[in-house]
Amino acid sequence: MTIDMKDIVALCKRRGFIFQASDIYGGLNGFWDFGPLGIALKNNLRDAWWRSMVIAPPLGPDGSPVEIVGLDSAIIQNPKTWEASGHVGGFTDPMVDCKETKQRYRADHLLFLTPLDGKSVTIKGKQASAFAFMQGTSNEEIKERLKKLRVNKEFVGTSADISDLLAFTSLENVNLSETVGPDASEPGTLTPPRQFNLMLDTYPGVVRDEASKAYLRPETAQGIFLNYKNVLDSMRVRMPFGIAQVGKAFRNEVTPRNFIYRSREFEQMEMEWFCPPEEAAQWFDFWVAQRKQFWLDVGLPESMLQLRKHDQDELAHYAKEGLGTIDVEFQFPFTAPGFGELEGIAHRGDFDLRQHSEFSGQKLDYLDQINGNRRYTPHVIEPAAGLTRGVLALICAAYRIDPNRPAGLYLDFHPSMAPVKAAILPLTAKEDHVPTAQKLYMDLRKEYVVELDIKQNIGKRYARQDEIGTPFCFTIDNDTLQDQTVTVRERNSMKQDRIALHKVKDYLKQKIR
Amino acid sequence: MTIDMKDIVALCKRRGFIFQASDIYGGLNGFWDFGPLGIALKNNLRDAWWRSMVIAPPLGPDGSPVEIVGLDSAIIQNPKTWEASGHVGGFTDPMVDCKETKQRYRADHLLFLTPLDGKSVTIKGKQASAFAFMQGTSNEEIKERLKKLRVNKEFVGTSADISDLLAFTSLENVNLSETVGPDASEPGTLTPPRQFNLMLDTYPGVVRDEASKAYLRPETAQGIFLNYKNVLDSMRVRMPFGIAQVGKAFRNEVTPRNFIYRSREFEQMEMEWFCPPEEAAQWFDFWVAQRKQFWLDVGLPESMLQLRKHDQDELAHYAKEGLGTIDVEFQFPFTAPGFGELEGIAHRGDFDLRQHSEFSGQKLDYLDQINGNRRYTPHVIEPAAGLTRGVLALICAAYRIDPNRPAGLYLDFHPSMAPVKAAILPLTAKEDHVPTAQKLYMDLRKEYVVELDIKQNIGKRYARQDEIGTPFCFTIDNDTLQDQTVTVRERNSMKQDRIALHKVKDYLKQKIR
Repeated sequence: MTIDMKDIVALCKRRGFIFQASDIYGGLNGFWDFGPLGIALKNNLRDAWWRSMVIAPPLGPDGSPVEIVGLDSAIIQNPKTWEASGHVGGFTDPMVDCKETKQRYRADHLLFLTPLDGKSVTIKGKQASAFAFMQGTSNEEIKERLKKLRVNKEFVGTSADISDLLAFTSLENVNLSETVGPDASEPGTLTPPRQFNLMLDTYPGVVRDEASKAYLRPETAQGIFLNYKNVLDSMRVRMPFGIAQVGKAFRNEVTPRNFIYRSREFEQMEMEWFCPPEEAAQWFDFWVAQRKQFWLDVGLPESMLQLRKHDQDELAHYAKEGLGTIDVEFQFPFTAPGFGELEGIAHRGDFDLRQHSEFSGQKLDYLDQINGNRRYTPHVIEPAAGLTRGVLALICAAYRIDPNRPAGLYLDFHPSMAPVKAAILPLTAKEDHVPTAQKLYMDLRKEYVVELDIKQNIGKRYARQDEIGTPFCFTIDNDTLQDQTVTVRERNSMKQDRIALHKVKDYLKQKIR
Repeated sequence: MTIDMKDIVALCKRRGFIFQASDIYGGLNGFWDFGPLGIALKNNLRDAWWRSMVIAPPLGPDGSPVEIVGLDSAIIQNPKTWEASGHVGGFTDPMVDCKETKQRYRADHLLFLTPLDGKSVTIKGKQASAFAFMQGTSNEEIKERLKKLRVNKEFVGTSADISDLLAFTSLENVNLSETVGPDASEPGTLTPPRQFNLMLDTYPGVVRDEASKAYLRPETAQGIFLNYKNVLDSMRVRMPFGIAQVGKAFRNEVTPRNFIYRSREFEQMEMEWFCPPEEAAQWFDFWVAQRKQFWLDVGLPESMLQLRKHDQDELAHYAKEGLGTIDVEFQFPFTAPGFGELEGIAHRGDFDLRQHSEFSGQKLDYLDQINGNRRYTPHVIEPAAGLTRGVLALICAAYRIDPNRPAGLYLDFHPSMAPVKAAILPLTAKEDHVPTAQKLYMDLRKEYVVELDIKQNIGKRYARQDEIGTPFCFTIDNDTLQDQTVTVRERNSMKQDRIALHKVKDYLKQKIR
C-alpha cells in the first residue's frame, strides 16, 4: 500500500497535528507549526527519548546502567564555536542560479540529461547539449518538457524510452553554456555552483558589525562539547559517560521539502558518548543496536527500518577517520521503496574536543584517576536523532487506510505515543451522561492524557478519535446509569465491549503498559 | 536573611544547574546554558505548567474543567506577523551612547543628578550641570565618583546626605551638552536617545535582501494568534477556550543582567485565553488567582510573592484599553526588599486578532452557533510566565544557609520540583552494598528520577545532595545486608530513620504526593 504524502499533510492540518507556519500570511518556506495533537505526539517522543537516555539509561555490557546526564544549551553561542567545529568554513551546499528565471537550485539535487553520442541541438538559436532536471522528475515529465522545448529527434532519438539514448550525468560533466536549466527556455543561463553556508546568522548586542555576528546553531551537538568541561567539573561523572540534549536547530536549506522532513527550523535529540579511544568500536556497536531498538519500541515496524553504513565519500568532516557513520533509516512515503535518514550514529573520534581545545586554549582531556592517572582525549560516539523527523515517521508508520470506517482511515499509534490515550464520550449531551463522563474524565486524567468530548453524534466522534489515533474510547450511555458499565471501543479492531465503570482505570493500565 | 546573587551563581555553576553559554570561549553576553540539574529543574517546572494548563486544566466557575489545547509554533514566522503585532514599529528601547567611552546605556535605566538650585560646575574646562548614573548606584558610589571628578562644594553642597541638595531627574530634564555620562570624565559626551529595536533578525532563504528579512520571535504569544483559526478549524473547541505554548523567545536586551533574569535568549510559558468580550473581566480575575496559586503550588512562599497592577503609563500597547495587566512578582535577591516580574496577566482585548485580521485579510472572528449565531472577535486574557525566570525564582526561594551542614547550605525545593527525588547511596564501593543499591535504584527509577552515587565518602555525598536539593537519601550499609533495612535521611531536618528496604517505594510515594 502506498501512502500519498498529500493525504498525510491534509490529515495533519485537518486534525491539528501540523500546520504551515504563519498560515494566515501564506506561510514561510521551510517552517512549520505543531498543532495541539502534533505537540502532544512530539512531547511523547521527546519524553521517551529523554527517559531512555537520562532518566533510565540502558544497561551497559557489564550489566549496570550507563551514565548519561542531560543538558540544555543556548541556541546562540559564541561564534568561535562554529569556527572550531568547522561549520563556518565547511557547512555549505553548492548552489546554482538561473539568470533567466532567477530560481536557485542545489547543484547536487540537479541531474543532467545528455545524448549518449554527444550530439547537440539548437534551442532559440543557441547550441544545447544538456538539459537539467530536478532529482525525482519522472520520465513522463522529462519527455513533456523536451517536447515543449522542441528538442528534435536528432537529440533524443526515437526510442519510446528516453533512457535508451540519453544518459544522466552530474554538473561537472556538462558544458554550462550549452545547458538548459530546469525551468529555463534557452541554454547558458545557469551559473557555476558557488558554496552557500547553511547557518542562519544574527547580531546580538547593540552594535551591528562583523565582531557581533553570531549563528543560530545548525546542530545541538556543539553545545554539548562546549560544556564537556563544566559537566566533568560539576557532575561527578566518570568515563565512559554521555551528555544528552533535545532542542531546536536551524539550517538555511536551499530547497526545503517533503513536509517537515527537510525544514529550516527543526528539533534534534543528540547524545554525545565520551569513552576511552580503545573502547570506541565496542560502544559504536552498542549504540547502533540501542538506537534501532528505540525506534522499534516507539512503534516503527522492523520492515520500515534499515541500518545503512555511510560510504567513505559521504562522511561528514568529523567522521572521516575512525569507524564512520551508520544511519537508522525509515521508509518514508517520499523515499519508498527507498529509505531516508531518521538518525545517524557517528564516530566523531576526538575531532570536536581537539578543535575546541585548540580554539579555546583550554584543556579538554580526561584524567583517569582510577586507571593509573592516564590522560587522554576521549573519543565520541554520537547517536543524533531527528525529533521532527521522528514525528513524521510515527505518523507515516501509523497511517492505515480502511474503507470500513467513517473517516476512511485511522492512525495505529503505539499506545505510548498516542497523543490521547483514551476518549470519554457521553452518548448524548442532554441527559445525565455528562456528569458521569466528567467524573470518569477527572479520575483518568490524574494518570493519563485523556479527552472528554461531548459534541456531535457518536459516529463523528469515533471518526475523529480514529484519525488522531486514540487507542480506546469509553462511551457512557443509559445502560451506564443502570448497571455502571461502559462501552469500550478498541481502535484497531473496532471491537466494542462492556466493562465495569470502576474497572476502566485498571483496564487502561493493563493495556497501556 | 539576605542572599548574595554571587553565591547563587557560584552554586549554579558548581553543582551543574546553570553555566555561562560558551564558557570556554569567555561566554556570550546575555546567553546561558542549563546543566544537568538545571534542565531537570526546568523540565519539572515546564511539565507542571503544561499539566496545569493542557493535560488537567482547572475547573471553571461552573465547576467543569475549562478547555485548553497545546501548541508549538516556529521561532521564525512570516515577518508580517511582527508588523501586525506592533513589534517592528514599537518594540524598542531608548539607547544612549557615550562618545568618550563607547559605552551604551538604556536611557530609561539612567538617573541624572542635578543641584536643587540649578547651579553648575566646571569639569575639564566645560560647564557641567548634571551627572548621569546607572539606576541602583549607591549613594556611597555617587559620592565617590563626584569626588573623583573633583566636583566642588558649590555644586554638591556640604551636607553629608547628597539627597538634601541634589535631585534625581530623567533625561528629558537635563541639558546633554552639560551632562557627564556614567563612565565619562567630561560633560557633553552622551548622545540623544535613539530607538533600538529589540528583535534579533536573520535571513532565511537563499537570497539576502529586505524581502527575506525575518525575526526571532520576541514572545511566543503571536504564534498562538497566528494559529487561532487553524485551532478553531481542527480542534472542536468552543468559546471560551485557551491555547498554551512553551518555548524560546529572543530579545536583544541592551543591558542583559541579573544572571538569567534578563537574558537575550529565554523561555516563556504563555496561554492565550479567548472569551466573549463581556466575560473578559470575570476570566481576568479567574486567571490572576489561578496563576498565583500555581507559583505557590510549585513551592514559592506566599511572603516572596505579590500581585501588582500596572500603572496606566507602563502598560504595553496591546493592554492600553481594557482591564490592564497584573504582574505576579517575586522577591529576587537583586530586587529585595522589592519585587521583580515573574509573570504578567494581561487583558489584550481583541488587539491581536484584529491586527492579524487586518494585515492578513482573513476573518478571525468567532461564530457562536450555540448562542443565536452571534459573531464577534473574542477578547484575550493572557497569563504569560517566564520559564527561565521561574527556574531562578525556584532556586532563590529554595536557598537555605545552614552552618551545621558540610556544604553550609541546602536547597529546599518542593519535592515535585526537585531535580532528583531520591539518592541511593551504598555506604562503600567495595563491599556488597553496591548490588543491593543498584537493585533499589533500578526499581525506583521506574517511577521517579533517582540517582545512584557510589563515589567518595558518605559525608561528601550528603553534602552534594543537600546542595542539589534532593529530598531523600537512602543509604545501604552492612545492616541492610543483615536485616533488609536502609537509612533514610530527610533533607530539611537531616533526621535519619531506618526503614525496611521493601517499603522504600511506598515511603517515597507517600512523601512525594
